Amino acid sequence: MSNLPKAITIYEEGPREGFQYEKGPIPTEAKIRLIDSLSVSGLRYIQIGSFVDPRRVPGMADTEAVAHGIKINPDVEYNALWMNVRGMKQALAIAHLHVDGKVRVYPSKTFLEKNLQRTSEGNRQKNVELIAQCKALGVPVAEASISSAFGCNFEGEIPLSTVMALVDEVVETFAENDCTIKHLVLADTMAWGTPVAMQRMIGAIQDKYPEITLRMHLHDTRGLGLANAYAALSMGVAHFDSSIAGLGGCPFAAHRGAAGNVCTEDLVAMCHEIGVETGTDLDALVESSMIAREVVGHDLPGRVAIAGTLSALRRKPRGC
Amino acid sequence: MSNLPKAITIYEEGPREGFQYEKGPIPTEAKIRLIDSLSVSGLRYIQIGSFVDPRRVPGMADTEAVAHGIKINPDVEYNALWMNVRGMKQALAIAHLHVDGKVRVYPSKTFLEKNLQRTSEGNRQKNVELIAQCKALGVPVAEASISSAFGCNFEGEIPLSTVMALVDEVVETFAENDCTIKHLVLADTMAWGTPVAMQRMIGAIQDKYPEITLRMHLHDTRGLGLANAYAALSMGVAHFDSSIAGLGGCPFAAHRGAAGNVCTEDLVAMCHEIGVETGTDLDALVESSMIAREVVGHDLPGRVAIAGTLSALRRKPRGC
Repeated sequence: MSNLPKAITIYEEGPREGFQYEKGPIPTEAKIRLIDSLSVSGLRYIQIGSFVDPRRVPGMADTEAVAHGIKINPDVEYNALWMNVRGMKQALAIAHLHVDGKVRVYPSKTFLEKNLQRTSEGNRQKNVELIAQCKALGVPVAEASISSAFGCNFEGEIPLSTVMALVDEVVETFAENDCTIKHLVLADTMAWGTPVAMQRMIGAIQDKYPEITLRMHLHDTRGLGLANAYAALSMGVAHFDSSIAGLGGCPFAAHRGAAGNVCTEDLVAMCHEIGVETGTDLDALVESSMIAREVVGHDLPGRVAIAGTLSALRRKPRGC
Repeated sequence: MSNLPKAITIYEEGPREGFQYEKGPIPTEAKIRLIDSLSVSGLRYIQIGSFVDPRRVPGMADTEAVAHGIKINPDVEYNALWMNVRGMKQALAIAHLHVDGKVRVYPSKTFLEKNLQRTSEGNRQKNVELIAQCKALGVPVAEASISSAFGCNFEGEIPLSTVMALVDEVVETFAENDCTIKHLVLADTMAWGTPVAMQRMIGAIQDKYPEITLRMHLHDTRGLGLANAYAALSMGVAHFDSSIAGLGGCPFAAHRGAAGNVCTEDLVAMCHEIGVETGTDLDALVESSMIAREVVGHDLPGRVAIAGTLSALRRKPRGC
């Protein structure tokens, strides 16, 4: 019935997801405080912000200052989001940021236009150019992501065949440019996914490309984040993006409501309870989650930090 | 991989769950407004309140007035919670309330003591007495429920063997008293359940008692409500308690945070998206969910009402 992995790896995106989405302004010091707390929670991958046009995403204007202000934990790989070579170069200028190239494809033409002002063909060319520029700069190209893979607020359902054709295209693009896909990210950017859709798409890709490692990026806008994560886990998927306290959302996705990524500590709590290791300290994550609330100045969707963990109840029954 | 039912039946408990848990006071008229809105949403079962000691649960003191004030939809079966014969008689006095007997068992001795001030043996005797009194009053005894079946804030994990022994006891109690179990309710009162635990327990009961219809009562305290519901659906379970907007929580369960039942409209949205019918109108439920927020005077955990439904986005893309 299920093919749960023994352990998963979590890619923390809360700082980037949250700081781009919150109305702000959030002081640089507060961002650093949150990242420093995440750095000692056992997380191994933390996205600290993004190098994008500050006119479009004002909350990201201080990413360089954030990057220079954090206390580096040598066990953590820090990275930042960027969407073009200019952004990549900004990231490369900061020695302790890990940089690799990421090919992004969009089954929804409308979202591609809104998010990047590109056509599908234009995006394909940009990806080929990006790979060439990465190579010239010595940056490995290791990842591909499919945005709004399960559905789109602008275009509705995304047929599985459309996604599979894009996977073929991505595999081809990598092969033609002598690159190897480390992760293929299936992003449910606009929260159209269901457990059934997860299993169908993951199964189809696993069947055709068993050598590709899948990673899920699941937004929890309609409350299905953990149900979808469990569906992916039950298919053996072992790599998940997530967001402390459920921070975040994409400013260009026409969202309403609590639009963030699946909540890191809730995902970790579920995994630990079903015997899947995460390498993280849930109590430390709960602390980070409370800091995240202080930083943004309001409550956030994550549940476990407020409800209390089951492990705390085991240590101290009735203690809540 | 999955054995999804074609359709599920939903037992709406939001009014009872919410009014017992909210600090209140909530005006009787406001309660009636919420119930009347639920009555035209396609729901077939609505629990409108409870007949319990108003000193212990002050929010329930006006249940009789609520029952008399609502607009009866003949397609809806209205009921109220009660815990003893005194409460049952109060419910029986109201012609349009459906009354049937419910046997409750508690794997957690501590919770049984806190919730009902009884020992396990005392509870068993009370159940036998209850059945006799129901028979004397012409009330069918049709349901059994296992409270905190997956774990307890006071006692921690509940071993599956403990639950199975209680199921055996319940089946025996029913047989000895010439009653038939219509539903066996597995209640995750304190939100210790996980998708894996759901599948394990449901599978064990289905194997031993294939003739028993299971119904899930899933609290969403740690965000796993829908993941657990999906796990139950994938085992063919077709009966679910739920709570509009995620209202509620048990005042005696030592909860913190958003402790309500799984959210009705979020459950319905998930079901419709995976092709499981519910017989309800999601737009009407979203409206009820917004009324629930007005009634309690603060936001509630349900996501879909705030985020917007996918069906609305299909009708009007970019409309959110």
